[in-house]
Amino acid sequence: MSALLPPLAVSIGDPAGIGPEIVAHAWAARAAQGLPPFFAIGDARAIAAVWDGPVEVLAAPGDAAAAFDHALPLIQVDDPGEIVPGDPNLAGARCALDSLEIAVGLARNGMAGAVVTGPVSKAQLYAIGFDYPGQTEFIAERCGIATANAVMMLAGPSLRTIPVTVHLPLAQVPRALSAELIVAKGRVAARALCRDYGIAAPRLAVAGLNPHAGESGTLGREDIDIVRFAVDALIADGIDAVGPLAADTMFHASARALYDVALCMYHDQALIPLKTLDFEDGVNVTLGLPIVRTSPDHGTAFGIAGKGVASPRAMIAAIRMAGECAARRAA
Amino acid sequence: MSALLPPLAVSIGDPAGIGPEIVAHAWAARAAQGLPPFFAIGDARAIAAVWDGPVEVLAAPGDAAAAFDHALPLIQVDDPGEIVPGDPNLAGARCALDSLEIAVGLARNGMAGAVVTGPVSKAQLYAIGFDYPGQTEFIAERCGIATANAVMMLAGPSLRTIPVTVHLPLAQVPRALSAELIVAKGRVAARALCRDYGIAAPRLAVAGLNPHAGESGTLGREDIDIVRFAVDALIADGIDAVGPLAADTMFHASARALYDVALCMYHDQALIPLKTLDFEDGVNVTLGLPIVRTSPDHGTAFGIAGKGVASPRAMIAAIRMAGECAARRAA
Repeated sequence: MSALLPPLAVSIGDPAGIGPEIVAHAWAARAAQGLPPFFAIGDARAIAAVWDGPVEVLAAPGDAAAAFDHALPLIQVDDPGEIVPGDPNLAGARCALDSLEIAVGLARNGMAGAVVTGPVSKAQLYAIGFDYPGQTEFIAERCGIATANAVMMLAGPSLRTIPVTVHLPLAQVPRALSAELIVAKGRVAARALCRDYGIAAPRLAVAGLNPHAGESGTLGREDIDIVRFAVDALIADGIDAVGPLAADTMFHASARALYDVALCMYHDQALIPLKTLDFEDGVNVTLGLPIVRTSPDHGTAFGIAGKGVASPRAMIAAIRMAGECAARRAA
Repeated sequence: MSALLPPLAVSIGDPAGIGPEIVAHAWAARAAQGLPPFFAIGDARAIAAVWDGPVEVLAAPGDAAAAFDHALPLIQVDDPGEIVPGDPNLAGARCALDSLEIAVGLARNGMAGAVVTGPVSKAQLYAIGFDYPGQTEFIAERCGIATANAVMMLAGPSLRTIPVTVHLPLAQVPRALSAELIVAKGRVAARALCRDYGIAAPRLAVAGLNPHAGESGTLGREDIDIVRFAVDALIADGIDAVGPLAADTMFHASARALYDVALCMYHDQALIPLKTLDFEDGVNVTLGLPIVRTSPDHGTAFGIAGKGVASPRAMIAAIRMAGECAARRAA
């Protein structure tokens, strides 16, 4: 299948972060890790500053497959000048945004099999006028998809979770939660697990908001009024959903065996179990897009950039998963 | 040390739950598991209904050590009549409450080395007039300790966590949280980890309430106004505390290596990582009491009672931990 798939586009993210080195190390591990062909989009000098392996600057993305065997194929963006690892600047932020935009465009045009995005600094992007909450919203808009239908899923070897609400203060979560929101994310998740992950009838486990899923209402009504209502609506849609489940007893191994994805009501309910179990291998996937998009679930790590200690594991996992999902779509 | 320690008192909890069988199976595993001498408090017929091993009904708790080698020593409470596994009744609830009360009394008088409590049904206890939120509050009162100073800690092989707020709807958590509460629980935890766990200078990791610990206030002010204030107060007290930490990145293996206990702001923040990692071995410990008290971190499991499938692992872990803590206090 993957022979038919164009190489994947990997944006290096902020060139002063660990993006350049983890993309390069993922390429170096391509054979051992069985990675599909990919090319980087970013700055050659930023990569050379942190890695002494071969880089081949491409004239066109179509040349990537031929180069992949012997060098890291690279689409060069506008030269950002000298990049110092660990010391981000505005030229680097422009490089990161260019890389992202080109990657999405190539995937939209079918010239890249999927997009894998390296870590960016939101603070740096905001400083150059970027006005999206994050890369995901930018990509959704470029794909003509409403942000609400671009669903963040965290996926590791042990577990997949979706935070139904994401970056909110905890006090705002109960008000922000609605049955509509849960149902919308559940539908996108069910479709995507079927299309991109080959799971014919995905099983959704829906976490309760309150301790013990509200203990029949004595610990809060939301699990009855909102979560159970949403689960019933998903079931009425023909989706295999169960819940609300007590969140504390749904993430151990034998509980995880009963579902394909956990819908969680807030950020830490989804991220605590994922990062507890799969800290180094966590992949952030955007479901519901016309293109496949994954990302390593970590930040720029400016503090260790260029020191040779950043682990490429999550980048490798993100590239592998993007290739698998794209191959399933192409099949 | 444990030669000087009186046997531990283990209340069997609701006799129609899995308590009788897991206590009996813990006794049967005493040698393989290296458990300290203990005696059960409950009903002989309820144990005989689910286990065909030897039971020795004691005339006095002082006889327990001599019996422990060849039979499960038992203090018989008032006969509750016939108990059917999986079918709780009020006589069984009285048996559970009697067992608990006797266990605490014996530990208070120095005739038991510690108390290990089997699982009870709160609904059944409420039906006989029990008016405490749970066993912990009952024990605290019997020990003359304010409930606020009896601190629930969950402890497994991988992790120890303390929920600063416990059984509250999530929407009430931000209002219920205060620096005073965090500091009070942190002080009890630091003392208890030193006295009962032999950790000379316990390291406390304090979780933030909001995602990413509030991201400098952009995702909620509580982590600055409440959590950081509490951490500073604990440090001023001479306690090794750090926080607020992003809750999602504090429970993987290399993060856990940096602290002895995690203070969490709400139930699921503490219970999700604990049960994700140590589901079958979780021990519920009450810190701050004049006696040592532990409990397996699971319920009565009426649905599987008497079927021979209940795992005694958490009960074994609770007995072992109670013995270790009591031995440290006695040393």
